[in-house]
Amino acid sequence: MKKSEAAAPPAITVVTTGGTIDKLYFDALSEYQVGESVVRKLLAIGNVRYPFEIIEALRKDSLELTDADRDDLYRRVAALPTSRVVMTHGTDSMAVTAARLASIPGKTIVLTGALSPARFSESDASFNLGMAFATAQVAPPGVYIVMNGEVFPAGSVRKDREAGRFVRTD
Amino acid sequence: MKKSEAAAPPAITVVTTGGTIDKLYFDALSEYQVGESVVRKLLAIGNVRYPFEIIEALRKDSLELTDADRDDLYRRVAALPTSRVVMTHGTDSMAVTAARLASIPGKTIVLTGALSPARFSESDASFNLGMAFATAQVAPPGVYIVMNGEVFPAGSVRKDREAGRFVRTD
Amino acid sequence: MKKSEAAAPPAITVVTTGGTIDKLYFDALSEYQVGESVVRKLLAIGNVRYPFEIIEALRKDSLELTDADRDDLYRRVAALPTSRVVMTHGTDSMAVTAARLASIPGKTIVLTGALSPARFSESDASFNLGMAFATAQVAPPGVYIVMNGEVFPAGSVRKDREAGRFVRTD
Amino acid sequence: MKKSEAAAPPAITVVTTGGTIDKLYFDALSEYQVGESVVRKLLAIGNVRYPFEIIEALRKDSLELTDADRDDLYRRVAALPTSRVVMTHGTDSMAVTAARLASIPGKTIVLTGALSPARFSESDASFNLGMAFATAQVAPPGVYIVMNGEVFPAGSVRKDREAGRFVRTD
Repeated sequence: MKKSEAAAPPAITVVTTGGTIDKLYFDALSEYQVGESVVRKLLAIGNVRYPFEIIEALRKDSLELTDADRDDLYRRVAALPTSRVVMTHGTDSMAVTAARLASIPGKTIVLTGALSPARFSESDASFNLGMAFATAQVAPPGVYIVMNGEVFPAGSVRKDREAGRFVRTD
Repeated sequence: MKKSEAAAPPAITVVTTGGTIDKLYFDALSEYQVGESVVRKLLAIGNVRYPFEIIEALRKDSLELTDADRDDLYRRVAALPTSRVVMTHGTDSMAVTAARLASIPGKTIVLTGALSPARFSESDASFNLGMAFATAQVAPPGVYIVMNGEVFPAGSVRKDREAGRFVRTD
Repeated sequence: MKKSEAAAPPAITVVTTGGTIDKLYFDALSEYQVGESVVRKLLAIGNVRYPFEIIEALRKDSLELTDADRDDLYRRVAALPTSRVVMTHGTDSMAVTAARLASIPGKTIVLTGALSPARFSESDASFNLGMAFATAQVAPPGVYIVMNGEVFPAGSVRKDREAGRFVRTD
Repeated sequence: MKKSEAAAPPAITVVTTGGTIDKLYFDALSEYQVGESVVRKLLAIGNVRYPFEIIEALRKDSLELTDADRDDLYRRVAALPTSRVVMTHGTDSMAVTAARLASIPGKTIVLTGALSPARFSESDASFNLGMAFATAQVAPPGVYIVMNGEVFPAGSVRKDREAGRFVRTD
């Protein structure tokens, strides 16, 4: 079988919006802030060779995201030439953004984030980003949230803040 | 909407066989050896709440796996009650084992491993295990290899040792 | 040469008071808080076999330490049977506490902390704690601050918050 | 008190020779090798501002060090303009090299290394390097080994390989 030159897999676009996954700690202020996205570093550590691009859309705590922010995210994602999209996002309003993006047709859109900053030596960031990368490649078009080791269809999941985890809402 | 008690998602079985992902460094011997699997710790760091079980089948460098080992893995996987299986495996002969398992019907079987030991501060282990967990949930029955950020159907992938990565063989 | 049974080195007492070194991130609150001290884990990672004990005195951000707290620390340290003391402390008021302890006679007291939480994969916590352990064994009685790779006598150092580092004040 | 411009502390020279601290794992070979020294990265993570320079003298497993290597190290260290020297070294023959350097006058020379590679997420490398940096500043001229949380004068310590730790030999 001859090697097809055209066989390069379709690219994934990673849209970063902020959230705990990107939180830095600033000693001089004794507080954390959302910093430059760690996604590029995490993908390098994951030895990712699948073609991807990263778009930094926002640097916000997810509780600070407004309807206008979500309208903007909708337009940017809908306009992407790629059909496979990973979005990193704060966990508190991830389900709200997922619902806002639900009507985008023909794309597999996967939201994920982290419960601990990726800069922590023990963070769920790499695992979650790996889940998102695989789901974007394998799942049919639609919007998904991948957290806590599970692939959730967007309409059937919420964050249980007390328990510190995502649960199904059926 | 009432909460369905029966909605518990089906379990994933993780079968560990050894490989670089589980390599420890023993100073007294000045060498690396395959140790107790780190999978349970990686899943804890990933905050996984999806029900899973871990079966430690082997602790071998993948170049040491024999045909008898693969026959045994075939029987153990085929006999599992779960239909979603993640197998951690050394990278050098991962494609051979994947081919051996290809005729198991009705199961989504996902092989993964790591190019750097999971004990390294910068390892692809967590990312790859996340990919495997998602693929096991989302992909149709069949055998897959997830490495280098890509979901490969088992028959179309090999490791390029010089390049230190997995590539398609079409 | 016979092994002297009495040769066991004198113990170090580690007094933990809180500060950035012990900061955890709580996703449910979207904030950092001082948690259980990581000192025991850091000493285990450092393969420390030198006999030590850990006393958790406080769990405070160093800006919250009061004069009463410092009086209490003075009494506790002065009453310790060991002559070698390491104290982990928030960086912002470390120099104030060091000054308060300066009149304790006959003890080598070494304060240290971290500019990044020890839970970060890249933190100065281990390096600083190593410096403190060595200084407590080698330096003559007195109070020291070890930060930014330097051993400072307590009276000649302050934190430059803008620069995010400790500097000499001579 | 006026700020003395000449108060810059004397520099430390770090001489790297290889050993476990610098070991990398090469998946393509399924083996570890001594790689480029991680000392610069560890000092950056430690936020070190104390003036230092790094000299990469060797990249060897310490069992491979020859008498000629040690003669060369002796000459290089004796010729250094700085009086404070940290040497990273494999653990198995660290005591031999320390003995070889013992007759260098007027310098505080501190050998250290690691029982786990610095690239591991849980390694004693940072802690040990911190100990060495402090000892080089505080201890009187002489040769020391700092490992397992203890500052050992060079002539009174050996590695107990079975126990995987350094012990006094009195």
